[in-house]
Amino acid sequence: MNEYQEKIAIKKRLAIYYRDQSVKNGLTDMRRIKAYLPDDLMFRQLKRDLVIAHLDFEPILELIADKKEFVVVSGLNPSSTLHLGHQILFDLLLSLQKLGGRIYIPLTNDESYIDGKVQTMGESKRVAYEEILPSIIAFGFDPKRTHIYVDTEYPTLYPFAMRLSKYVSMAEVESLFGKESLVTPGQIFYRGCVQLAEILMPQLPEFGGPKHTLIPVGIDQHPYILLARDVAKRMGMVPPSELVMRFLPSLKDPEQKMSGSKPETAIYLSDTSEVIGKKIASAFTGAVSSLEEHRKFGAVPEACSVFALLSAYLESDRELQDLYSRYTKGELLTKELKEIAKRCITSVVFSHQQKKIAAQDKEVYLLTRPIQSYLD
Amino acid sequence: MNEYQEKIAIKKRLAIYYRDQSVKNGLTDMRRIKAYLPDDLMFRQLKRDLVIAHLDFEPILELIADKKEFVVVSGLNPSSTLHLGHQILFDLLLSLQKLGGRIYIPLTNDESYIDGKVQTMGESKRVAYEEILPSIIAFGFDPKRTHIYVDTEYPTLYPFAMRLSKYVSMAEVESLFGKESLVTPGQIFYRGCVQLAEILMPQLPEFGGPKHTLIPVGIDQHPYILLARDVAKRMGMVPPSELVMRFLPSLKDPEQKMSGSKPETAIYLSDTSEVIGKKIASAFTGAVSSLEEHRKFGAVPEACSVFALLSAYLESDRELQDLYSRYTKGELLTKELKEIAKRCITSVVFSHQQKKIAAQDKEVYLLTRPIQSYLD
Repeated sequence: MNEYQEKIAIKKRLAIYYRDQSVKNGLTDMRRIKAYLPDDLMFRQLKRDLVIAHLDFEPILELIADKKEFVVVSGLNPSSTLHLGHQILFDLLLSLQKLGGRIYIPLTNDESYIDGKVQTMGESKRVAYEEILPSIIAFGFDPKRTHIYVDTEYPTLYPFAMRLSKYVSMAEVESLFGKESLVTPGQIFYRGCVQLAEILMPQLPEFGGPKHTLIPVGIDQHPYILLARDVAKRMGMVPPSELVMRFLPSLKDPEQKMSGSKPETAIYLSDTSEVIGKKIASAFTGAVSSLEEHRKFGAVPEACSVFALLSAYLESDRELQDLYSRYTKGELLTKELKEIAKRCITSVVFSHQQKKIAAQDKEVYLLTRPIQSYLD
Repeated sequence: MNEYQEKIAIKKRLAIYYRDQSVKNGLTDMRRIKAYLPDDLMFRQLKRDLVIAHLDFEPILELIADKKEFVVVSGLNPSSTLHLGHQILFDLLLSLQKLGGRIYIPLTNDESYIDGKVQTMGESKRVAYEEILPSIIAFGFDPKRTHIYVDTEYPTLYPFAMRLSKYVSMAEVESLFGKESLVTPGQIFYRGCVQLAEILMPQLPEFGGPKHTLIPVGIDQHPYILLARDVAKRMGMVPPSELVMRFLPSLKDPEQKMSGSKPETAIYLSDTSEVIGKKIASAFTGAVSSLEEHRKFGAVPEACSVFALLSAYLESDRELQDLYSRYTKGELLTKELKEIAKRCITSVVFSHQQKKIAAQDKEVYLLTRPIQSYLD
């Protein structure tokens, strides 16, 4: 197979992967939602196909159309510095907040610990308060409708998790997650109860009772949603809706995720312009190496880790379409694409770094109201 | 088999049951401890063979002899009104406190809930605060060395339980408790982690660091101690010592436990003198029904639910020995024994009821210092 055919094959495999995963998991693609949503409510992540599938999104859509509030829950594992793969999630949350979303963000230092991503829960708590919380403020979330907590600092979450444990059987947990990820009792309790407590908590009486909630996830987190929906029904709550995001690819391999634990795959929100430049310069692209062949066949943007950065972060839709077209035809060179990506990403990262330094009033974002109704 | 032989058979089965359980579980009987303990340190529960076996009690004995402090942890399921079977445990705790014990008493309303003994954790919390806490105060515990908490009201217990979950494997939990008691993730987390957190908590830095602790249990709770000892070693803590109590028998069957959920088997600390009289009048005894045969063969105190009450509660050792001797010989009639038991137990229960009404200063007994070191 020649180099160009290899890039085409990557594009196909990715398309098939997302389609098969969606079908297998009973998800619906976004075509009808996109067709229905009026222009003034259209958001970038939907327009750019960063959101690829959903389950039961329609009730949320109605609330958006009626300009009513809905709840979004999106947890984060505070085990490393944030990278661009996290930022696309936060960008989606910001879009949803603008459409009426009240956002709950559990920072799951207990999960980081039990899965061995950090040595201590304290280390993970430090990352949560000193790295992630200022970043969230820097992204520009509305403090009145953004509620952040670090799991171990919000301990009434756990008796609520104990309460809902009665609505979950081990047989379900094992069949959804597989025995290999359930080695300790803590892993079982986290996956089978604590994560569900995070998702269902906004439906407790102290937060206003049952309501529509939306959980943005990667396709690999779908089992949590299935379990949460079943348990919600058993507890007389509303089954949460799901929005599945495309993962931001590794800089080295468009078929892998950008991962904070593999620095060569990721651009961190703390990287310098020099580091960003080097990482993009050595990134995997959708173009063949011979200039002559590039001019002849063109490139494959869907198999390009650099183009994926621009899809997520370039401000102008028109400029992105233009780049897509010229890159595909072989008019735009890889070197030129990388230069554009470098400028775009450096600007995104620098803007974030400046706002993060200026971040203030952390306290107003922290959820402090203890859960009580587990006693009911 | 005639009636007398049946009573003898009960006595034998009980002796064999405790001996076999002790041997099977690697426990040591109390003979050497009793021989070693000086008269002024001897306590009633040991003297009357209510304590039947131990594991690693020697370090505690040394602390007692040196008049140094040791820690005792003894949890209670707040799912029903207290009965005499609970009181013998509290009496032991009081004896241990007089010998230098600092006592921690978790009131496990989460356990009551996950095992279906109550409908809500709130119901169990109410029992804990309104029934059990005043009773504990009435028993006369020293507020400076008695620390009580309701599990869900002391929620930092749970992140500590998450922390220690890393030192426990599901394989261990399943082999110790059996799959049939591990149906939900909450049951697994409670048995595999929360109960261990209760036991090991006094060894955390915020409570002074590693130290000798003693856990009084019924023989059926031995698996918890084995797991706690293994986990303590892995966490650099001192493996807790164990003291095994004989159960107070059901009023209806000396081979069964007195149980709060079966009113006919138990005398509650809230019973009236009339109820106590009726319950004792219809209790199972170690005497045959024919007066003639009783005079001839005598009775079997070890197979007598009424005599068990006196063994636990009669103040005078000499009087108890005298009753044992006369009952065994058939000189003391069942009716007379029951009359003595009724007077003794009514006095115990009434004294408790009066003190309970007068119980004050609940707050000073409650443990409020949050756990922090799970972050380490």
